[in-house]
Amino acid sequence: MEIYEIEIKTSEREEIIDITNDVQEIILKSGIKNGFCILFVPHTTAGITINENADPSVKKDILKIFDKLIPYFGDYQHIEGNSAAHAKSIITGFSQLIMIKNKNLILGTWQGIYFNEYDGPRNRKLLIQIINIENKN
Amino acid sequence: MEIYEIEIKTSEREEIIDITNDVQEIILKSGIKNGFCILFVPHTTAGITINENADPSVKKDILKIFDKLIPYFGDYQHIEGNSAAHAKSIITGFSQLIMIKNKNLILGTWQGIYFNEYDGPRNRKLLIQIINIENKN
Amino acid sequence: MEIYEIEIKTSEREEIIDITNDVQEIILKSGIKNGFCILFVPHTTAGITINENADPSVKKDILKIFDKLIPYFGDYQHIEGNSAAHAKSIITGFSQLIMIKNKNLILGTWQGIYFNEYDGPRNRKLLIQIINIENKN
Repeated sequence: MEIYEIEIKTSEREEIIDITNDVQEIILKSGIKNGFCILFVPHTTAGITINENADPSVKKDILKIFDKLIPYFGDYQHIEGNSAAHAKSIITGFSQLIMIKNKNLILGTWQGIYFNEYDGPRNRKLLIQIINIENKN
Repeated sequence: MEIYEIEIKTSEREEIIDITNDVQEIILKSGIKNGFCILFVPHTTAGITINENADPSVKKDILKIFDKLIPYFGDYQHIEGNSAAHAKSIITGFSQLIMIKNKNLILGTWQGIYFNEYDGPRNRKLLIQIINIENKN
Repeated sequence: MEIYEIEIKTSEREEIIDITNDVQEIILKSGIKNGFCILFVPHTTAGITINENADPSVKKDILKIFDKLIPYFGDYQHIEGNSAAHAKSIITGFSQLIMIKNKNLILGTWQGIYFNEYDGPRNRKLLIQIINIENKN
Protein backbone atom coordinates (compact mmCIF):
# COMPACT_ATOMS: atom_id res chain seq x y z
CA MET A 1 0.00 0.00 0.00
CA GLU A 2 1.41 3.35 -1.03
CA ILE A 3 0.37 6.77 0.19
CA TYR A 4 1.12 9.48 -2.33
CA GLU A 5 1.79 13.13 -1.49
CA ILE A 6 1.25 16.38 -3.33
CA GLU A 7 3.11 19.45 -2.09
CA ILE A 8 1.17 22.70 -2.22
CA LYS A 9 2.84 26.07 -1.60
CA THR A 10 0.21 28.67 -0.81
CA SER A 11 0.93 32.36 -1.25
CA GLU A 12 -2.01 34.15 0.41
CA ARG A 13 -3.72 33.97 3.81
CA GLU A 14 -6.82 32.65 2.06
CA GLU A 15 -6.61 30.97 -1.28
CA ILE A 16 -8.45 28.34 -3.32
CA ILE A 17 -6.09 26.31 -5.54
CA ASP A 18 -7.15 23.97 -8.36
CA ILE A 19 -5.32 20.65 -7.85
CA THR A 20 -7.33 18.50 -10.29
CA ASN A 21 -4.40 17.95 -12.67
CA ASP A 22 -2.00 17.08 -9.83
CA VAL A 23 -4.41 14.43 -8.55
CA GLN A 24 -4.99 13.04 -12.06
CA GLU A 25 -1.21 12.71 -12.54
CA ILE A 26 -0.89 10.66 -9.35
CA ILE A 27 -3.69 8.36 -10.55
CA LEU A 28 -1.82 7.74 -13.82
CA LYS A 29 1.43 7.19 -11.94
CA SER A 30 -0.20 4.59 -9.67
CA GLY A 31 -1.15 2.37 -12.60
CA ILE A 32 -4.55 1.71 -11.02
CA LYS A 33 -7.34 1.55 -13.59
CA ASN A 34 -10.60 1.32 -11.64
CA GLY A 35 -11.52 2.15 -8.07
CA PHE A 36 -11.53 5.34 -6.06
CA CYS A 37 -9.13 7.68 -4.30
CA ILE A 38 -9.15 9.27 -0.87
CA LEU A 39 -7.75 12.81 -0.72
CA PHE A 40 -6.80 13.85 2.82
CA VAL A 41 -5.55 17.17 4.18
CA PRO A 42 -3.23 16.59 7.20
CA HIS A 43 -3.67 20.16 8.48
CA THR A 44 -6.18 21.93 10.74
CA THR A 45 -6.43 25.30 8.95
CA ALA A 46 -6.93 24.12 5.37
CA GLY A 47 -9.54 21.95 3.67
CA ILE A 48 -10.37 20.22 0.41
CA THR A 49 -13.49 20.60 -1.69
CA ILE A 50 -15.02 20.36 -5.12
CA ASN A 51 -16.14 23.44 -6.97
CA GLU A 52 -16.81 25.05 -10.33
CA ASN A 53 -13.79 25.07 -12.65
CA ALA A 54 -15.09 27.53 -15.25
CA ASP A 55 -15.43 31.09 -13.93
CA PRO A 56 -12.52 32.09 -11.61
CA SER A 57 -14.75 34.62 -9.85
CA VAL A 58 -16.52 31.73 -8.08
CA LYS A 59 -13.39 31.22 -5.96
CA LYS A 60 -13.39 34.88 -4.93
CA ASP A 61 -17.08 34.76 -4.06
CA ILE A 62 -16.63 31.60 -1.95
CA LEU A 63 -13.77 33.15 0.06
CA LYS A 64 -15.82 36.33 0.53
CA ILE A 65 -18.95 34.42 1.61
CA PHE A 66 -16.96 32.32 4.12
CA ASP A 67 -15.15 35.39 5.44
CA LYS A 68 -18.45 37.16 6.03
CA LEU A 69 -19.75 34.09 7.90
CA ILE A 70 -16.61 33.58 9.99
CA PRO A 71 -14.44 36.72 10.10
CA TYR A 72 -10.70 36.16 10.57
CA PHE A 73 -10.56 38.67 13.39
CA GLY A 74 -13.05 38.01 16.16
CA ASP A 75 -13.47 37.51 19.88
CA TYR A 76 -11.54 34.21 19.93
CA GLN A 77 -9.73 32.67 22.94
CA HIS A 78 -7.23 30.57 20.97
CA ILE A 79 -3.78 32.06 21.48
CA GLU A 80 -2.71 31.66 17.88
CA GLY A 81 -5.71 33.79 16.87
CA ASN A 82 -6.59 31.61 13.87
CA SER A 83 -9.81 30.01 15.17
CA ALA A 84 -11.70 31.28 12.13
CA ALA A 85 -9.36 29.24 9.92
CA HIS A 86 -10.07 26.13 12.01
CA ALA A 87 -13.84 26.69 11.72
CA LYS A 88 -13.69 27.25 7.95
CA SER A 89 -11.67 24.05 7.55
CA ILE A 90 -14.30 22.08 9.51
CA ILE A 91 -17.18 23.29 7.32
CA THR A 92 -15.11 22.65 4.16
CA GLY A 93 -13.95 19.20 5.24
CA PHE A 94 -10.58 17.42 5.38
CA SER A 95 -11.17 14.66 2.83
CA GLN A 96 -12.79 14.02 -0.52
CA LEU A 97 -13.57 10.74 -2.26
CA ILE A 98 -13.36 10.56 -6.04
CA MET A 99 -14.17 7.50 -8.16
CA ILE A 100 -11.73 6.36 -10.86
CA LYS A 101 -12.70 4.69 -14.14
CA ASN A 102 -10.23 3.79 -16.91
CA LYS A 103 -7.49 5.73 -15.07
CA ASN A 104 -9.60 8.90 -15.01
CA LEU A 105 -11.11 10.78 -12.09
CA ILE A 106 -14.88 10.78 -12.41
CA LEU A 107 -15.93 14.39 -12.01
CA GLY A 108 -18.95 16.31 -13.25
CA THR A 109 -18.51 18.56 -16.30
CA TRP A 110 -18.02 21.68 -14.20
CA GLN A 111 -16.22 20.11 -11.26
CA GLY A 112 -12.62 20.65 -10.23
CA ILE A 113 -10.82 19.59 -7.02
CA TYR A 114 -9.71 22.48 -4.84
CA PHE A 115 -7.33 22.89 -1.92
CA ASN A 116 -8.62 25.66 0.36
CA GLU A 117 -5.98 27.54 2.33
CA TYR A 118 -7.43 29.47 5.28
CA ASP A 119 -4.27 30.46 7.19
CA GLY A 120 -1.42 30.85 4.72
CA PRO A 121 0.95 31.39 3.22
CA ARG A 122 2.31 27.96 4.16
CA ASN A 123 3.86 24.83 2.73
CA ARG A 124 1.03 22.27 2.67
CA LYS A 125 0.63 18.61 1.79
CA LEU A 126 -2.19 16.52 0.43
CA LEU A 127 -2.18 12.75 1.07
CA ILE A 128 -3.65 10.42 -1.54
CA GLN A 129 -4.59 6.78 -1.16
CA ILE A 130 -5.78 4.92 -4.26
CA ILE A 131 -8.00 1.88 -3.86
CA ASN A 132 -8.06 -0.66 -6.68
CA ILE A 133 -11.38 -2.44 -7.10
CA GLU A 134 -10.70 -4.10 -10.46
CA ASN A 135 -11.99 -7.67 -10.63
CA LYS A 136 -13.47 -7.51 -7.21
CA ASN A 137 -17.03 -6.32 -7.54
CA MET B 1 -16.45 -2.33 -11.50
CA GLU B 2 -19.82 -0.74 -12.06
CA ILE B 3 -20.87 2.80 -11.30
CA TYR B 4 -24.60 3.12 -10.74
CA GLU B 5 -26.66 6.25 -11.38
CA ILE B 6 -29.83 7.65 -9.88
CA GLU B 7 -31.65 10.37 -11.79
CA ILE B 8 -33.18 13.12 -9.70
CA LYS B 9 -35.55 15.69 -11.16
CA THR B 10 -35.79 18.67 -8.85
CA SER B 11 -38.74 21.06 -9.00
CA GLU B 12 -37.76 24.03 -6.84
CA ARG B 13 -34.76 26.36 -6.66
CA GLU B 14 -33.96 24.92 -3.24
CA GLU B 15 -35.19 21.51 -2.23
CA ILE B 16 -34.19 18.61 0.03
CA ILE B 17 -35.18 15.23 -1.41
CA ASP B 18 -35.17 11.91 0.46
CA ILE B 19 -33.30 9.36 -1.69
CA THR B 20 -32.83 6.62 0.92
CA ASN B 21 -35.09 4.12 -0.85
CA ASP B 22 -33.48 4.77 -4.26
CA VAL B 23 -30.03 4.05 -2.80
CA GLN B 24 -31.28 0.93 -0.98
CA GLU B 25 -32.72 -0.39 -4.27
CA ILE B 26 -29.36 0.01 -6.02
CA ILE B 27 -27.67 -1.91 -3.17
CA LEU B 28 -30.13 -4.81 -3.63
CA LYS B 29 -29.67 -4.69 -7.42
CA SER B 30 -25.87 -4.89 -7.06
CA GLY B 31 -26.05 -8.21 -5.21
CA ILE B 32 -23.35 -7.03 -2.80
CA LYS B 33 -23.97 -8.19 0.77
CA ASN B 34 -21.35 -6.49 2.94
CA GLY B 35 -19.18 -3.44 2.43
CA PHE B 36 -19.91 0.20 1.91
CA CYS B 37 -21.11 2.58 -0.76
CA ILE B 38 -19.84 5.93 -1.98
CA LEU B 39 -22.55 8.41 -3.01
CA PHE B 40 -21.20 11.22 -5.19
CA VAL B 41 -22.90 14.33 -6.59
CA PRO B 42 -21.31 15.31 -9.96
CA HIS B 43 -22.63 18.90 -9.76
CA THR B 44 -21.39 22.15 -8.21
CA THR B 45 -24.68 23.61 -6.97
CA ALA B 46 -26.14 20.58 -5.19
CA GLY B 47 -24.96 18.41 -2.31
CA ILE B 48 -25.70 15.22 -0.43
CA THR B 49 -26.26 14.84 3.29
CA ILE B 50 -27.86 12.81 6.04
CA ASN B 51 -30.72 14.21 8.07
CA GLU B 52 -33.77 13.44 10.17
CA ASN B 53 -36.39 11.39 8.33
CA ALA B 54 -39.27 11.87 10.77
CA ASP B 55 -40.60 15.45 10.86
CA PRO B 56 -40.74 17.07 7.36
CA SER B 57 -40.42 20.53 8.92
CA VAL B 58 -36.71 19.82 9.59
CA LYS B 59 -36.07 20.13 5.83
CA LYS B 60 -37.76 23.54 5.75
CA ASP B 61 -35.80 24.73 8.77
CA ILE B 62 -32.50 23.58 7.23
CA LEU B 63 -33.15 25.43 3.96
CA LYS B 64 -34.19 28.54 5.91
CA ILE B 65 -31.11 28.41 8.18
CA PHE B 66 -28.77 27.98 5.19
CA ASP B 67 -30.53 30.77 3.27
CA LYS B 68 -30.12 33.13 6.20
CA LEU B 69 -26.40 32.26 6.38
CA ILE B 70 -25.78 32.54 2.65
CA PRO B 71 -28.52 34.55 0.89
CA TYR B 72 -29.18 33.66 -2.76
CA PHE B 73 -28.98 37.29 -3.81
CA GLY B 74 -25.81 39.05 -2.70
CA ASP B 75 -22.84 41.06 -3.82
CA TYR B 76 -21.34 38.22 -5.91
CA GLN B 77 -18.97 38.58 -8.89
CA HIS B 78 -19.80 35.24 -10.57
CA ILE B 79 -21.66 36.02 -13.79
CA GLU B 80 -24.18 33.24 -13.37
CA GLY B 81 -25.19 34.82 -10.06
CA ASN B 82 -25.45 31.49 -8.22
CA SER B 83 -22.39 31.73 -5.96
CA ALA B 84 -24.61 31.18 -2.89
CA ALA B 85 -25.57 27.78 -4.34
CA HIS B 86 -21.88 26.88 -4.80
CA ALA B 87 -21.11 27.89 -1.19
CA LYS B 88 -24.06 25.92 0.23
CA SER B 89 -22.95 22.85 -1.74
CA ILE B 90 -19.44 23.12 -0.29
CA ILE B 91 -20.66 23.24 3.32
CA THR B 92 -23.09 20.36 2.65
CA GLY B 93 -20.55 18.19 0.84
CA PHE B 94 -20.46 16.27 -2.44
CA SER B 95 -20.16 12.72 -1.13
CA GLN B 96 -21.42 10.46 1.63
CA LEU B 97 -20.18 7.07 2.73
CA ILE B 98 -22.66 4.52 4.05
CA MET B 99 -21.80 1.05 5.37
CA ILE B 100 -23.72 -2.00 4.11
CA LYS B 101 -24.48 -5.11 6.17
CA ASN B 102 -26.60 -8.01 4.92
CA LYS B 103 -27.62 -5.96 1.88
CA ASN B 104 -28.90 -3.10 4.05
CA LEU B 105 -27.65 0.45 4.41
CA ILE B 106 -26.53 1.00 8.00
CA LEU B 107 -28.25 4.19 9.11
CA GLY B 108 -29.25 5.46 12.54
CA THR B 109 -32.94 5.15 13.53
CA TRP B 110 -33.73 8.72 12.52
CA GLN B 111 -31.36 9.01 9.57
CA GLY B 112 -32.32 9.34 5.91
CA ILE B 113 -30.10 10.18 2.91
CA TYR B 114 -30.92 13.51 1.27
CA PHE B 115 -30.08 15.17 -2.04
CA ASN B 116 -29.89 18.94 -1.51
CA GLU B 117 -30.75 21.05 -4.56
CA TYR B 118 -29.50 24.65 -4.23
CA ASP B 119 -30.00 25.96 -7.79
CA GLY B 120 -32.93 24.13 -9.38
CA PRO B 121 -35.13 23.13 -10.89
CA ARG B 122 -32.73 20.86 -12.82
CA ASN B 123 -32.20 17.28 -13.92
CA ARG B 124 -29.58 15.89 -11.56
CA LYS B 125 -27.64 12.67 -11.15
CA LEU B 126 -26.18 10.81 -8.21
CA LEU B 127 -23.29 8.37 -8.80
CA ILE B 128 -23.00 5.27 -6.63
CA GLN B 129 -20.04 2.95 -6.24
CA ILE B 130 -20.46 -0.14 -4.08
CA ILE B 131 -17.42 -1.73 -2.48
CA ASN B 132 -17.65 -5.39 -1.52
CA ILE B 133 -15.59 -6.34 1.51
CA GLU B 134 -16.98 -9.81 2.05
CA ASN B 135 -14.29 -12.36 2.99
CA LYS B 136 -11.60 -9.75 2.99
CA ASN B 137 -11.32 -8.41 6.50
CA MET C 1 -16.80 -7.97 7.91
CA GLU C 2 -17.02 -6.45 11.35
CA ILE C 3 -18.46 -3.10 12.32
CA TYR C 4 -16.96 -1.75 15.54
CA GLU C 5 -18.72 0.62 17.93
CA ILE C 6 -17.49 3.25 20.34
CA GLU C 7 -19.91 4.46 23.01
CA ILE C 8 -19.76 8.16 23.83
CA LYS C 9 -21.58 9.66 26.80
CA THR C 10 -21.90 13.40 26.35
CA SER C 11 -22.50 15.69 29.33
CA GLU C 12 -23.35 19.08 27.83
CA ARG C 13 -25.80 20.36 25.21
CA GLU C 14 -22.85 21.25 23.00
CA GLU C 15 -19.53 19.55 23.42
CA ILE C 16 -16.48 18.59 21.35
CA ILE C 17 -14.87 15.32 22.53
CA ASP C 18 -11.46 14.00 21.48
CA ILE C 19 -11.91 10.36 20.43
CA THR C 20 -8.52 9.85 18.70
CA ASN C 21 -7.28 7.31 21.26
CA ASP C 22 -10.56 5.34 21.19
CA VAL C 23 -10.33 5.02 17.41
CA GLN C 24 -6.63 4.06 17.56
CA GLU C 25 -7.47 1.30 20.07
CA ILE C 26 -10.09 -0.18 17.72
CA ILE C 27 -7.53 -0.18 14.89
CA LEU C 28 -5.08 -2.16 17.04
CA LYS C 29 -7.84 -4.54 18.16
CA SER C 30 -8.82 -5.21 14.51
CA GLY C 31 -5.37 -6.52 13.66
CA ILE C 32 -5.47 -4.66 10.33
CA LYS C 33 -2.10 -3.17 9.39
CA ASN C 34 -2.67 -1.06 6.28
CA GLY C 35 -5.76 0.48 4.75
CA PHE C 36 -8.25 3.04 5.96
CA CYS C 37 -11.17 3.39 8.33
CA ILE C 38 -14.62 4.90 7.94
CA LEU C 39 -15.97 6.65 11.04
CA PHE C 40 -19.74 7.14 10.92
CA VAL C 41 -22.10 8.95 13.31
CA PRO C 42 -25.56 7.25 13.27
CA HIS C 43 -27.29 10.34 14.72
CA THR C 44 -28.82 13.51 13.24
CA THR C 45 -27.78 16.04 15.91
CA ALA C 46 -24.09 15.18 16.25
CA GLY C 47 -21.17 15.10 13.82
CA ILE C 48 -17.56 14.04 13.49
CA THR C 49 -14.62 16.19 12.49
CA ILE C 50 -10.89 16.70 12.66
CA ASN C 51 -9.43 19.59 14.57
CA GLU C 52 -6.45 20.95 16.48
CA ASN C 53 -5.41 18.79 19.42
CA ALA C 54 -3.07 21.25 21.12
CA ASP C 55 -4.87 24.27 22.60
CA PRO C 56 -8.22 23.34 24.27
CA SER C 57 -9.55 26.86 23.65
CA VAL C 58 -9.96 25.99 19.94
CA LYS C 59 -12.90 23.74 20.88
CA LYS C 60 -14.57 26.59 22.77
CA ASP C 61 -14.03 28.99 19.87
CA ILE C 62 -15.48 26.49 17.38
CA LEU C 63 -18.65 25.98 19.45
CA LYS C 64 -18.99 29.74 19.87
CA ILE C 65 -18.48 30.45 16.16
CA PHE C 66 -21.05 27.79 15.18
CA ASP C 67 -23.53 29.02 17.79
CA LYS C 68 -23.25 32.56 16.44
CA LEU C 69 -23.87 31.26 12.90
CA ILE C 70 -26.79 29.02 13.85
CA PRO C 71 -28.30 29.97 17.23
CA TYR C 72 -29.93 27.14 19.21
CA PHE C 73 -33.08 29.19 19.76
CA GLY C 74 -34.60 30.57 16.57
CA ASP C 75 -37.73 30.78 14.49
CA TYR C 76 -37.79 27.05 13.70
CA GLN C 77 -40.85 24.96 12.75
CA HIS C 78 -39.52 21.57 13.88
CA ILE C 79 -41.54 20.50 16.92
CA GLU C 80 -38.53 19.19 18.82
CA GLY C 81 -36.99 22.66 18.55
CA ASN C 82 -33.50 21.35 17.78
CA SER C 83 -33.21 22.34 14.11
CA ALA C 84 -30.02 24.27 14.86
CA ALA C 85 -28.42 21.01 16.02
CA HIS C 86 -29.45 19.31 12.75
CA ALA C 87 -27.97 22.17 10.70
CA LYS C 88 -24.69 22.16 12.66
CA SER C 89 -24.40 18.39 12.16
CA ILE C 90 -24.84 18.80 8.40
CA ILE C 91 -22.08 21.41 8.09
CA THR C 92 -19.78 19.30 10.33
CA GLY C 93 -20.49 16.03 8.53
CA PHE C 94 -21.45 12.51 9.60
CA SER C 95 -18.37 10.60 8.50
CA GLN C 96 -14.60 10.88 8.33
CA LEU C 97 -12.08 8.77 6.46
CA ILE C 98 -8.66 8.17 7.99
CA MET C 99 -5.82 6.22 6.37
CA ILE C 100 -4.00 3.52 8.37
CA LYS C 101 -0.32 2.63 7.98
CA ASN C 102 1.50 0.09 10.18
CA LYS C 103 -1.53 -0.07 12.49
CA ASN C 104 -1.47 3.69 13.04
CA LEU C 105 -3.98 6.35 12.05
CA ILE C 106 -2.35 8.78 9.65
CA LEU C 107 -3.08 12.22 11.05
CA GLY C 108 -1.25 15.52 10.72
CA THR C 109 0.92 16.65 13.64
CA TRP C 110 -1.81 18.87 15.08
CA GLN C 111 -4.82 16.77 14.13
CA GLY C 112 -7.13 14.90 16.49
CA ILE C 113 -10.49 13.22 15.74
CA TYR C 114 -13.45 14.86 17.42
CA PHE C 115 -17.06 13.87 18.12
CA ASN C 116 -19.23 17.01 18.07
CA GLU C 117 -22.36 16.86 20.25
CA TYR C 118 -24.92 19.51 19.30
CA ASP C 119 -27.99 18.37 21.28
CA GLY C 120 -26.84 16.59 24.43
CA PRO C 121 -26.41 15.33 26.95
CA ARG C 122 -27.05 11.94 25.33
CA ASN C 123 -25.65 8.44 24.97
CA ARG C 124 -24.09 8.35 21.51
CA LYS C 125 -22.41 5.78 19.30
CA LEU C 126 -19.73 5.93 16.63
CA LEU C 127 -19.55 3.14 14.02
CA ILE C 128 -16.18 2.11 12.61
CA GLN C 129 -15.47 0.02 9.55
CA ILE C 130 -11.83 -0.87 8.81
CA ILE C 131 -10.80 -1.66 5.26
CA ASN C 132 -7.70 -3.78 4.77
CA ILE C 133 -5.77 -3.00 1.60
CA GLU C 134 -2.64 -5.01 2.34
CA ASN C 135 -1.31 -6.85 -0.72
CA LYS C 136 -3.93 -5.43 -2.96
CA ASN C 137 -2.55 -2.25 -4.45
